[in-house]
Amino acid sequence: MPRIRLILQYHGARYHGWQVQPGQPTIQGTLQNALAKIAAAPVSLVASGRTDSGVHALAQVAHFDSDRVLPTETWPRALNANLPDDIVVLAADQVDDQFHARYLAVGKHYRYRILNRPIRCPFRRDRSWHIPQALNVAAMAEAANHLTGDHDYTSFRASGCGADTPNRTVHRIDVLRDGDEVVFEVTGRGFLKQMVRNLVGTVVEVGHGREQSGWAAQVLAARDRCAAGPTAPAHGLTLVSVDYGV
Amino acid sequence: MPRIRLILQYHGARYHGWQVQPGQPTIQGTLQNALAKIAAAPVSLVASGRTDSGVHALAQVAHFDSDRVLPTETWPRALNANLPDDIVVLAADQVDDQFHARYLAVGKHYRYRILNRPIRCPFRRDRSWHIPQALNVAAMAEAANHLTGDHDYTSFRASGCGADTPNRTVHRIDVLRDGDEVVFEVTGRGFLKQMVRNLVGTVVEVGHGREQSGWAAQVLAARDRCAAGPTAPAHGLTLVSVDYGV
Repeated sequence: MPRIRLILQYHGARYHGWQVQPGQPTIQGTLQNALAKIAAAPVSLVASGRTDSGVHALAQVAHFDSDRVLPTETWPRALNANLPDDIVVLAADQVDDQFHARYLAVGKHYRYRILNRPIRCPFRRDRSWHIPQALNVAAMAEAANHLTGDHDYTSFRASGCGADTPNRTVHRIDVLRDGDEVVFEVTGRGFLKQMVRNLVGTVVEVGHGREQSGWAAQVLAARDRCAAGPTAPAHGLTLVSVDYGV
Repeated sequence: MPRIRLILQYHGARYHGWQVQPGQPTIQGTLQNALAKIAAAPVSLVASGRTDSGVHALAQVAHFDSDRVLPTETWPRALNANLPDDIVVLAADQVDDQFHARYLAVGKHYRYRILNRPIRCPFRRDRSWHIPQALNVAAMAEAANHLTGDHDYTSFRASGCGADTPNRTVHRIDVLRDGDEVVFEVTGRGFLKQMVRNLVGTVVEVGHGREQSGWAAQVLAARDRCAAGPTAPAHGLTLVSVDYGV
C-alpha cells in the first residue's frame, strides 16, 4: 500500500492536542476524518509526536498508508478543501514504506514565545505567553545553557508521561530578545511530555530574578518535578520542524 | 466632569463590531461594562467611528466623561484587568472637554491585508483575506490611483449607510506586495459604511485581470453600488490610526 508523507501546519487553540480523544476535537481526528473522505476508507495517521492541547505547529510531519492512488500534488488540495482553516496540509509526497514519521525522527525544533511588555497584545494572545515584568534575558540564556546535553530530565517530565526512559538529549536552548518578545529556540533529539514547557517555566523563574542561573543545574540534578519551575502555558509553544537526518 | 481619552487595540473576530447591539458582544459594549465597574456609574464611550463586525484596530481613539477621579495611568491598568484579552487599552490621558473623538478626527488610516499564495495560513486566517490566485499588484496600484481624491463615493457605499453625503476625500491608496501578502494602506478624511472594503474588492477585480485598471475610474463615475466589485471580507481590515491634526 503506498505510503504518503504530509507536512502539516496548525493553530492549536481549538484542539485538544494531536491525539484522537473521543468526543473532543483533535488535530489527528480532524485530519483522519478528511483523509477517510478522500481515501474512501478509514485512515490511520502517524505523526512525529503528539502536540499538547493549544500547541501550534509550523511543519509537523505525519504519514499514512492508502490504497487510493492519487497524484501526490492532489492530496494537499483535496485535504485542504475538507479541513477547517486552522489546519493546512503544506505538502505531500509518496515515501518508501520504510519511512516512519515517529521512529525515524532524529530531532525536533520547538519555539516558545513570551510577550514581554507591560501591556498584552490582542493579536498574539493565543501565540505567546504574556509576562508583563521585564525579564533578564542574559540570566535566562545562562540558565538555559545548564539544561542542554544528555541527561535524565525527570525534573521536567509531566506526570502521566509514558516514555520508557527519562533520558533525553537537548542540543540547544537559545533565549533571545526579539523586539517586545523573548523567544526560546529549543532543539533536541526528542522531548518528554511537557518537557519544553517545563524547561521554559524554569528558565523564566531565573528571568524574574527569583532564582540565580546556577539554580537551573540544581533543578536538573534533582531529578524531581517538584524542584523545577511551573509549566509554561501551551499557547506560547510551536513545533517548528522535525529532523529526519537527511 | 473630567474627559478621558483612550487609545484602544482590539481583535474584532469575536465581536459584532464597535457599536452596542442588544444581546450581541460588541467592542463598545464590552468597554462600557468595564468602564462602568471602575467608574461605579454608567459610562458612554464615543469612538472616532464604528468598526464593522470582524474588523480589527491597532489604535482606535475614544473618549468618555466620568466623575471618578483616578490618576490617568490607573485607567488602562484597571480597565485591562476587567477586559477580555482581545481588547486592550494602550493608553489614557485627560483631555480638554472640547476634545471629541468623532467630531475632531480629521483623518483615518486603514490597512487591508490579502494573503496571496496558493495555500492558506492557519495563523493569519482571521487577519487577512486569502486569495490563492496570483494578483497583478502593479495593475491594482494603478486602479487604486483612480479612486483617490474628493469624490462622490456612492459606488462604494453600503446600503444602510447613514451618512448625510456620499462625498469623501481619500488621500492615498497604496497597494504593495509584502512577502506573501498584498497590503493596502488607505488614508482619507473619513469613509462611508464598508467603503474601504468596497474599494479593496473593486481593486482586487483588476488584480485578477477580470477588469483593466481604468475600469476603476468608470466604477467611481457610475455612482452606483452595482457597478463596483464585491465587498472584501471584514477580517482583512484593520483601523491603524486616527489623525486629529495635531
